[in-house]
Amino acid sequence: MKKRLFTPGPTPIPEKVALAMAEPIIHHRNPEFGEVLTRVNENLKYLFQTSQPVLTLTSSGTGGVEATFVSLFSPGDKIIAVNGGKFGERWVKMPQAFGMNVVEVRTKWGTAPDIDSLKAVLLKNADAKAVYLVHSETSTGTAADIESLAKMIRENSSALVCVDGITAVGAHEFRFDAWGVDVCVTGSQKGLMIPPGLAFVALSKRAIESMKTSTLPKFYFDLRKALKSHENNDTPWTPAVSLVVGVDRALEMIRSEGIENVWSRHRRLSSALREGLSALGLKLFSDSPSYAVTPVWMPEGVEWKAFNKTLKVDNGITIAGGQDDYAGKIFRISHLGYYDELDMITVIAAIERTLSVHKYAFDPGVGIAATQKSFLSHLL
Amino acid sequence: MKKRLFTPGPTPIPEKVALAMAEPIIHHRNPEFGEVLTRVNENLKYLFQTSQPVLTLTSSGTGGVEATFVSLFSPGDKIIAVNGGKFGERWVKMPQAFGMNVVEVRTKWGTAPDIDSLKAVLLKNADAKAVYLVHSETSTGTAADIESLAKMIRENSSALVCVDGITAVGAHEFRFDAWGVDVCVTGSQKGLMIPPGLAFVALSKRAIESMKTSTLPKFYFDLRKALKSHENNDTPWTPAVSLVVGVDRALEMIRSEGIENVWSRHRRLSSALREGLSALGLKLFSDSPSYAVTPVWMPEGVEWKAFNKTLKVDNGITIAGGQDDYAGKIFRISHLGYYDELDMITVIAAIERTLSVHKYAFDPGVGIAATQKSFLSHLL
Repeated sequence: MKKRLFTPGPTPIPEKVALAMAEPIIHHRNPEFGEVLTRVNENLKYLFQTSQPVLTLTSSGTGGVEATFVSLFSPGDKIIAVNGGKFGERWVKMPQAFGMNVVEVRTKWGTAPDIDSLKAVLLKNADAKAVYLVHSETSTGTAADIESLAKMIRENSSALVCVDGITAVGAHEFRFDAWGVDVCVTGSQKGLMIPPGLAFVALSKRAIESMKTSTLPKFYFDLRKALKSHENNDTPWTPAVSLVVGVDRALEMIRSEGIENVWSRHRRLSSALREGLSALGLKLFSDSPSYAVTPVWMPEGVEWKAFNKTLKVDNGITIAGGQDDYAGKIFRISHLGYYDELDMITVIAAIERTLSVHKYAFDPGVGIAATQKSFLSHLL
Repeated sequence: MKKRLFTPGPTPIPEKVALAMAEPIIHHRNPEFGEVLTRVNENLKYLFQTSQPVLTLTSSGTGGVEATFVSLFSPGDKIIAVNGGKFGERWVKMPQAFGMNVVEVRTKWGTAPDIDSLKAVLLKNADAKAVYLVHSETSTGTAADIESLAKMIRENSSALVCVDGITAVGAHEFRFDAWGVDVCVTGSQKGLMIPPGLAFVALSKRAIESMKTSTLPKFYFDLRKALKSHENNDTPWTPAVSLVVGVDRALEMIRSEGIENVWSRHRRLSSALREGLSALGLKLFSDSPSYAVTPVWMPEGVEWKAFNKTLKVDNGITIAGGQDDYAGKIFRISHLGYYDELDMITVIAAIERTLSVHKYAFDPGVGIAATQKSFLSHLL
């Protein structure tokens, strides 16, 4: 059975990236590796659209976000954290674990953060050191308008603008410098198309400045150490060498496609997928759809586990289910990373085949036709 | 130029392990990955010779050691740390960064920790919560007698016996349960023969018990979370999937060779290498040689940088230099992981060729002959 992955991380690895990672390993203190890291550091700036340093850490994205908390802040510091899903929730619990004072702003799952509500919270909490935002909330497939939010935060406070870009970077337009973002974290197994194990952290001048007064205890995730090594295209601890070699190739692919083209491809794929799903009579979950992952309500009368089994066992397709309150109620199709238009036709075709087995009523082909139509409208 | 790596991490990746990691990636919440992790968890117990859980973390070995400090202890807790090299030094600085009370026991570089001196320190510090030991100090190629040290610590105190097994596990005999060790950490790019990016942490019942009262702040490296997930053959955060797939294959290789055979192979290779180096008139650095890495004094009249360049550029061989005070003064040849007897002949042959270029006087072939003789004496 031919297998196809449509999950929001790990995302499929391009064949040439997989083969590069399978080449004989090199030592991380060797000049060859220094060359790789120099190129990676440069291309990460392009990916984040920044002239500031982007640090590479050996950890999951969660570790990358932790590095920003422990390196920039002190116990008792006030943080505003916007929570509209599983990951937003994690960025509430994490600073609490480090003794920070967290002001939680809850957003309904599937709804983008509202600028005016956040502004009100910000004005009430003038002493907040930072606002943590999720650009694309993976659990709900919902995108936030980071450009406008960052602008509002900059205009109304001195709080650092910190962005979880884990499933957004490489999918949604993102301009670290132009938008006035201070911290952005992403992971390797997302838009960067390589296996999990690396986190990337971009830091503004203000963020770097705030590292000087931070008193939270830290060692492995001490970004001062990482920044110092970064200046010499090095890392303080042994990095995940094969993954760095992989991300070097992946960044070259992104650079060669052009970041604007990568963003517009994700917008085009997600839009066409939504057209296809809607044409099948399926209901979309998010008010503000992510370009990385599309959440869909399970149609009435179809049971998630049986649906997923047919999709997986008979069609070789892996998608993601709902989480927490939405387990069994929604499913999520990812189109983040190494996907093209024909992949969207493929996944809609498999969804149709699966719905048909589960006696859901629709005209066969109506979903793939709508997806195709959406793509062809762009070509004309 | 054919390239050969003789560095103490990353160590060479077996071809079938590299190819397994290049296979299409699977999702970490899928049953297929659960099967891999179940097997890995079981085989890690065999590797560490324990019936206790061995946790898999996505980080370098340094991150794995940090996880043990933040998860088992509290600010102000007294720790005895034995420092006889770069890594011993790190396990002094790290707990200090977390506000612990560190009693440092310094050992001369190249000399194993002395049991009686450590016993005296232990008796003077009856309130010590733990003793941190390095089994094989990578910077000095020096092995500690962990079995005897652990026995002495157990007999004279209630301190936890914590072992940095990063370059020892899979090279030196190590019996977590039988020797009464409480904590042991290793990394993936060492005896486990896969790229860097994973750390493995074995915990005794006493170590798990002490996690209940630990108050150091933690989140990503919270071993309580990792232990809870481990019970379901899961991980709290996205693991480095491809590396876990790789370590699964590597552990199967170790299991099939037999752990006692793996240990004795490392003893045999390191012993024959020392014979060869000595026959060349080179002086060995360590009083208590590691089976993972062999440090050698640079012969008089030969300059490290030029020597290393010839070895690397003309012979394709990468070894490690000295660190700190010993930079330029010693070189280190690793034989940790995926090496056999013919590899030792190869590296000695390359050392001979390089010494010859640098006008060091010796009878060509005398080093490889001594290495060969050592191996053949085992065969007879």
